[in-house]
Amino acid sequence: MPSVDAAKKVIFVVLDGAADRPTVNGKTPLMAASVSFFDHLAAEGILGIMDVIAPGIPPGSDTAHLSLLGYAPEAVYTGRGPFEAAGVGIDVRPGDIAFRGNFATLKDGVVVDRRAGRINDTHELAEEIRKRAHLDCDFIFKESVGHRAALLLRGEGLSPTISPTDPLHAGMPIVSATPVSNDRASTRTARFVNEFTQQVHSILKDLPINRERERQGKLPANTVLLRGAGAVPHLVPFEERTGLKAAVIAATALVIGIGKLTGMHYIPTRGATGHVNSNIKGKVDNVNKALKNHDFILLNIKGADEAGHDGNFDVKSSFLSHVDHVLSDLDIDDSTIVVITADHSTPVSLREHSGDPVPFLIWGKGVRTDQINEYTEPCAAQGGMHRIRGLDMTPVLMDLLGKQKKFGA
Amino acid sequence: MPSVDAAKKVIFVVLDGAADRPTVNGKTPLMAASVSFFDHLAAEGILGIMDVIAPGIPPGSDTAHLSLLGYAPEAVYTGRGPFEAAGVGIDVRPGDIAFRGNFATLKDGVVVDRRAGRINDTHELAEEIRKRAHLDCDFIFKESVGHRAALLLRGEGLSPTISPTDPLHAGMPIVSATPVSNDRASTRTARFVNEFTQQVHSILKDLPINRERERQGKLPANTVLLRGAGAVPHLVPFEERTGLKAAVIAATALVIGIGKLTGMHYIPTRGATGHVNSNIKGKVDNVNKALKNHDFILLNIKGADEAGHDGNFDVKSSFLSHVDHVLSDLDIDDSTIVVITADHSTPVSLREHSGDPVPFLIWGKGVRTDQINEYTEPCAAQGGMHRIRGLDMTPVLMDLLGKQKKFGA
Repeated sequence: MPSVDAAKKVIFVVLDGAADRPTVNGKTPLMAASVSFFDHLAAEGILGIMDVIAPGIPPGSDTAHLSLLGYAPEAVYTGRGPFEAAGVGIDVRPGDIAFRGNFATLKDGVVVDRRAGRINDTHELAEEIRKRAHLDCDFIFKESVGHRAALLLRGEGLSPTISPTDPLHAGMPIVSATPVSNDRASTRTARFVNEFTQQVHSILKDLPINRERERQGKLPANTVLLRGAGAVPHLVPFEERTGLKAAVIAATALVIGIGKLTGMHYIPTRGATGHVNSNIKGKVDNVNKALKNHDFILLNIKGADEAGHDGNFDVKSSFLSHVDHVLSDLDIDDSTIVVITADHSTPVSLREHSGDPVPFLIWGKGVRTDQINEYTEPCAAQGGMHRIRGLDMTPVLMDLLGKQKKFGA
Repeated sequence: MPSVDAAKKVIFVVLDGAADRPTVNGKTPLMAASVSFFDHLAAEGILGIMDVIAPGIPPGSDTAHLSLLGYAPEAVYTGRGPFEAAGVGIDVRPGDIAFRGNFATLKDGVVVDRRAGRINDTHELAEEIRKRAHLDCDFIFKESVGHRAALLLRGEGLSPTISPTDPLHAGMPIVSATPVSNDRASTRTARFVNEFTQQVHSILKDLPINRERERQGKLPANTVLLRGAGAVPHLVPFEERTGLKAAVIAATALVIGIGKLTGMHYIPTRGATGHVNSNIKGKVDNVNKALKNHDFILLNIKGADEAGHDGNFDVKSSFLSHVDHVLSDLDIDDSTIVVITADHSTPVSLREHSGDPVPFLIWGKGVRTDQINEYTEPCAAQGGMHRIRGLDMTPVLMDLLGKQKKFGA
């Protein structure tokens, strides 16, 4: 059989929330940024815009990454909890029900701070919960970075269709979980969640560590708010689907969790924070090392999304310039396909995700080049790939590697 | 009712496998070819790119032609056999199970040559099979050009979900057909196929014609390998769907078969081989004649696909130049819409079909022209039609003829 003259590996770079709307002098943060490396890739590659879910639909980071990796979110996604839980290191199994959690401050039934004064070390609090809480089903509770945590329920007769306990805004009362549908499993799951919530408050409220925080004028972490209930889906491993040995390099539990749930090798990076101060250079070094024994590397860089949520145009723009500069150290050659894209737009004007399409570029052997030599939202819209959907991305890449299965003969 | 001022006929030219990737000096074979006729049509017409199936999915020639003619392959396609069988002249009926076949050379159970030394005349061998083979269902076996043949099984309780007997590579043992699903019909069909295979070997191995081949140092044609099992679908005739009286002009059994199964009139061309040496001029003469009493002519020209599978850039490119030159004799005028496209890309770098979109141009009355005046992959990507799917092509053409049914009122 003749050898196939195609690239062998893919570096898939997701600039989380990087896409935007024209805001300052008619420019987006990406247009205002200096991204000579991306522009170089654009000049040699092909560009397009992508509806990660569908036109006008703002994706979550979870559904977006699933879609980009070829998992139809409509089929596998019930909530964010499972991916967060996997990301913080809980050994999740298909059918488990999982939640994202926040350590928070409760006073007279009202949530006075959803992050317990941005508490940082919650290990001891979590240990107490693990030791002393008891439910009529198996559960795993694990703390994550900052005020974050995850809860997993395991057993027969559980359901993710229950409402969150997190009121989502400070100054509101903590909410009882209620079944969204009226079946027995939802009712039972809501009961467990409410029991857990009550027990956690009893366990935490009088702990010395919280007494000490109060003495220091800090807010006590005396509750855990839960949201993002979801059932852990069965995801056919990415390598089984594609034949590509894959790694994920990311800072946020969510993306790490999606990587883990799809069977990717998670490579941690020291100093990767998910903020604009993250150690991007360390991530690039890890990508270059991972290229030696992986075929597909998912690199998520979170900072631009955060700047978008903060509504900070200048921070977003200068972060993108910085990322471009650091990513120019990626080891790319004839054997590598590089994708630069975003999982969604997070316009600084909205401070939230939007359904605007994201720009993408594909660089590497076999790519049909176009006339475009700048990586911006409007330039990408003129690119030779036109407009595709997030779910199209994996087949397009597999095809560039000469590995996409033919339909027909 | 006012008379409609629109074209009346369509010449639909499929340059099989013509689309490619940039390979030599950043050019595709089409970019390197001299195609002044296509460029002229491009200048006066409109261009675009087309995912014949979906982005990144490599089409077979079978699924591609079905899609281009408006038959959703997901709904009607189970395998290539039925179209090959129809193409070689077997009177196929919906529900029949059909296979593509190769006369081949078997030695001690191993396939030493999948084409029996590129045997040419197999009529006498096929006659012996027809006379002497016996199965517990009706069957039709027919030889085609070169080493090719087709087998059809007819009767109740048959199924196409069985594995091929063709190992696909020389030096491998012939394979027993096995049911892919474990139902009774699949098991029964696999048994018939294996009985047929054994009987064919017994019939052929000692025939004088094979003894004579061996004396001449040629490989005997002592087996028939089967693959591409499929159930003959019910396809609503093209004329019933569109009101267009259609003809197919092609060399390969597959395309002829798709034409026949959709009720098109097949017009044979002397010297049309499906290779780069084919009689393209004869095909063009046939198109011009057919225009007198047909509204839609499907012209398939195969050579570029063959050159792509051979990995031969120069042959592919110069064949396209040649085809362009010969096609400039097409009788086109105000009453004719012309489409120039490909059924799929067959990049010389892959030697296989790829999922890259194909370029297309549409020329004729009523077409909104664009700025593009070259028929190449990157120019087509800048065309006014943007990016469509194969299944969109028939409605677009029907609409140009003023015949597309309105949805709504």
